This record gives sequence, structure tokens and C-alpha cells, in this order.
Amino acid sequence: MISKEDFTKLHLEISPYIHRTPVLSSGLLNKLAETEIFFKCENFQKMGAFKMRGATAAILALNDKERAKGVVTHSSGNFAQAVSLSAKSLGILAYIVMPSSAPQVKKDAVKTYGGEITECEPNIKAREKAAEEIQQETGASFLHPSNQLEVIYGQGTAAIELLEEKPDLDIIITPVGGGGLIAGTALAANYFGNNCKTIGAEPFEVDDAYRSLKSGKIETNSSTNTIADGLKTQLGDKNFPIIQKFVSEIIRVEEDEIINAMKLIWERMKIVIEPSSAVAFAAVLREKEKFRGKKVGIIISGGNVDLSNLPF
Amino acid sequence: MISKEDFTKLHLEISPYIHRTPVLSSGLLNKLAETEIFFKCENFQKMGAFKMRGATAAILALNDKERAKGVVTHSSGNFAQAVSLSAKSLGILAYIVMPSSAPQVKKDAVKTYGGEITECEPNIKAREKAAEEIQQETGASFLHPSNQLEVIYGQGTAAIELLEEKPDLDIIITPVGGGGLIAGTALAANYFGNNCKTIGAEPFEVDDAYRSLKSGKIETNSSTNTIADGLKTQLGDKNFPIIQKFVSEIIRVEEDEIINAMKLIWERMKIVIEPSSAVAFAAVLREKEKFRGKKVGIIISGGNVDLSNLPF
Repeated sequence: MISKEDFTKLHLEISPYIHRTPVLSSGLLNKLAETEIFFKCENFQKMGAFKMRGATAAILALNDKERAKGVVTHSSGNFAQAVSLSAKSLGILAYIVMPSSAPQVKKDAVKTYGGEITECEPNIKAREKAAEEIQQETGASFLHPSNQLEVIYGQGTAAIELLEEKPDLDIIITPVGGGGLIAGTALAANYFGNNCKTIGAEPFEVDDAYRSLKSGKIETNSSTNTIADGLKTQLGDKNFPIIQKFVSEIIRVEEDEIINAMKLIWERMKIVIEPSSAVAFAAVLREKEKFRGKKVGIIISGGNVDLSNLPF
Repeated sequence: MISKEDFTKLHLEISPYIHRTPVLSSGLLNKLAETEIFFKCENFQKMGAFKMRGATAAILALNDKERAKGVVTHSSGNFAQAVSLSAKSLGILAYIVMPSSAPQVKKDAVKTYGGEITECEPNIKAREKAAEEIQQETGASFLHPSNQLEVIYGQGTAAIELLEEKPDLDIIITPVGGGGLIAGTALAANYFGNNCKTIGAEPFEVDDAYRSLKSGKIETNSSTNTIADGLKTQLGDKNFPIIQKFVSEIIRVEEDEIINAMKLIWERMKIVIEPSSAVAFAAVLREKEKFRGKKVGIIISGGNVDLSNLPF
């Protein structure tokens, strides 16, 4: 596990390549939630999501020889864009495996950021196989969106910045997808917080992390019927032990609660956030008594939404 | 006309009651517009629009005797909320005349901010009559949303703040509705800018200000078929002379250009803005050659939109 000193060093190293995003508050939302909330706005991060942090940290951890051969990942979402953009900033090649079914707008975004796309059949086996072939052919280093330590530490730097500005937070809440963000956040809260707890938020529809914490082993979702499309993935063997050790609980929310929370943030704070990001605020609204009188940090994970397909 | 010193003083006086809103930029939008744009984000202002500035300035200009009798205005939009909230902050009564046809959500917002609503028939005559009756009964001072000098000066303080942060702007662009924002902005650019021009932006569908500048008299709109619902009103005798003197031109844009500009700002900057606010950015995209190589300020006027009725 990373030490506090190395965590601070990693944050300094990625800082030139990322935005220091603002921490925003809303009097109206505080009133509604009956608590004091500080939103760390990673929707304003480069390429629109916290994934930029982990991708940059993982690439910076490579040596010169490795960097010369480039990086490869498979993703249809934010991580593909994050790897493309951070590779470009650092002057190295990025091979991105995307399912042929991925929306054209996402493929275009990856191309804009300079990623070299390989299309494959839209299933996880085909994605992994294609990435492996590229690895073997090119010697590129494989980057995992959530289950790789450097990526996890990189994601945790959003919480480091949040705690620099608000050192006396009692709780930080993040959404839980593949587990990279919450694991990194929990580590940061442990090192840089003052008795600051980390809580996860998850849709009932994909409550694999909730069940994993109960059962003590990594659970999967049999269906993924949620609007929070960034949270459909499951935990991994690198982040699960960190989550077990440092995350105090996972709160589950209903789909209509996610949509309501998302709408409130758009209307009251005038910011565009992804449904996945609204899950954490929905958790605070659902369990008000748990947060009353506390100082609560929420990581707004991203703002990449399809405006032609909104739930309201 | 206000002096530079009094303008600075007015800005200081209203500052405790308003937010100092951020100035944001987007590398992607700059690339697209082929110029450097600084967005002054009044969508993050209290109650979600620049109108808070003018309402506060006008109320602060009243003496104790006048304040004791309260204020009255007629509005179905942002000014009703602005007057209600600033009156509340200053501990005085606000009488708001609203057309009976106004959406319930707007009536609720005014009530939340403490405004006392009088409903009337949905036409301008009935609104003016109802406001006049309240004036006579209560002795309340009438506040006009755009054609009153204190209100105009108040609106201009957004540009003062923008120029404090970016003193070398070549141009500031604002949307043009009733004329209060652009008149105040033009005065501020004249006093606080360094050869900074002020340009207005208006939908072709309601191009009364464009025609007024051409003809030399206040023109009206025979129809108001635009998505920019904040820009349907016409100029007034107090702001028109200021606009004639200090505004260099008005650029007109088509409805689809407004929607495109609004979508770009939502998608790229992750902020929620009103259609009226998108008109200024649409003008920059429409006449790129005019702005190439310049430093351009844009006043984002507000962010109060009906999320269930979006154009995309």
C-alpha cells in the first residue's frame, strides 16, 4: 500500500496534467438535506470525469522504455477518453479497444484526444482478447480503469484536494462502480482526514459492492438495469481489500431517487452531472438522520451525459 | 449618469448581498470559436441570474422611509425572484404582480423568497394597473426590471468584476432583452475597460434593439417567437440613450444557432445556462472573423431553465 508521503508525491506529479476542480456548496441543497455538503466537482475535470486522474497517475508510473511502447485499455466510456488524453499530454501512444456498439460520439471523443481505436465484438471476452493481442504485438502496457493500484491512487487525489480545502469533513461519499474511486478516496480520507469516514453509494439495481461487503467476497450483478451507467461494473481484487478495510458502509438508492437528486443538482447548482454522480447525493437525501449536523464531502464523479437522452 | 467613483461605490455596497460569480473558460470552445472567451457566470448568481444585482442596487438606493413601505414590481420571470430575495435580505416587503398564467414553479419560487404575490390578467395593461394600485395603497416604491438607472448600474457590476479579473478584454458581449444588462455593461466597459467595446446579441426573431439602433428610436417586436424567452421585451427611454452612445453593434442570430450554442456550453463546460445566455456565444460563432485574435468576455445572464422542456 502507498505511504502518505508517496500519495502526496503522486498528487504533485499528476497536478500539471489535471485541473484542480472547484469545491461548491448550495445553501438550498444544504437546507433540503439538513446538513452541510461540499461537492468536489470532477465534472469540471479534463475530459469531464475523475478518470483523468487515475489514467495520468498510471502512465506517469511507467518507465521510459514502457512509455515508448504506449498504453492499451478496453473501455466504452470515460476511461477510454481519459487514457487517450493523458497519453497525448505525455506524448505517448494510446491503443483503445472499443466495442463496435459504442456510440459514435464516444468514438469521436477518443479520436479527438488522439487515441487509436480498435473495434471488437461487444462482449467482455472479445474486449480482453483484443487488448491482449495489442499488448503482445506492440508491447504496450495495459491500464485497468479501476483495478490497478496506480489508478486507484490517482482517483484518490480528488479527495486529497477536497480535504486540503475542507480538512474537518466527517464523511466523504462517492458512487461505487468498479471500485477505483471509492478505494482511492477511502485511502485519502484515512491519511489526510481528521477521523473522516468514507461511505459508498450504489443503485439497488447494481448493489454488488453492498453485497460484497456483506459476504466478504466479490459479488457480481445478474442484471444492470440502472440509469447510473458508470456503476454497472464490479469490484476487483486490488480495490476490494482496500474497500473492506476503509469503507464503513454502502448506502443503496432507488432509480427515482437518483433522477430526483440529479435534477436538484442541475436546477439548484446549475451544473451538469452524470446520473452516476447523483447517486451519492441521493444517498444523503435518503438517510438524512445519518448525516444531520455533519460536514459531508461528495465526489461529483463526472459530467459526460447524452443531452438528447435525459431522464427528465 | 453615474460617475466612475459612484459606480465603484455601488458595486461595493451591493457586494455583501450578491455572489461574486466565477469567470470560466474552455479550451475546446476557444478552439471552436477561434478566439479567447471568458464567461462571466451569472447563472451561479443568487436566484440564478444577474437580475439579483440590479434589484439589490435599486433597493439600496431607497431611503429608510421608502424602505419601510416596501417595493413593488410586475414580472413573471427572474426579476420577480430577484426583487423578492433582495428585499428579504434587506428586511423589507416585496409586492410582486404576476400574471395568473405564470407557471406554478415561478410563483412558488417567489413565495420561497418571501415575495407577496398579487395575481392579475395576463396582459401588460393589467400588470401595470395592479402594480400602480399597490403603489397607491401601500406607498411601496416601484422597481423596473430594465428601465431604471439604479437597476442598470447594478446589472453593470457583473462587467466590473469581469474586467477586474480580465482587464485587457477587447470586447464584452451580452444578450439584449429589456436593455438593462447591456446598458450597464457598456457603461462599465467604458469606465473600467481598456478600449473595451460592448456588443449586443439578439435573436433575429426579436431584433427590436438591432432595429432601434438603426432607426434611432425604440422599436417593438410584432411577434416574439424565440426560445430565448428572456429577450422578448423592448428597450426603454432610460437605457436606450446609453446603448446608443456606448454599444458598438448588435449581432443577430438564428434560433438553431442559439440551441447549438446552448448545447455546446452545457456539454463542454458542464454548466446549465438559459437559452437567452447562449445568444451571446452564438453571435461569436456566427461572426468568427470579427472576434479572431481578440479577448472576448461573455456575460452568461442566467441558468433558470425548465428541465422538462429542453430543446435537445
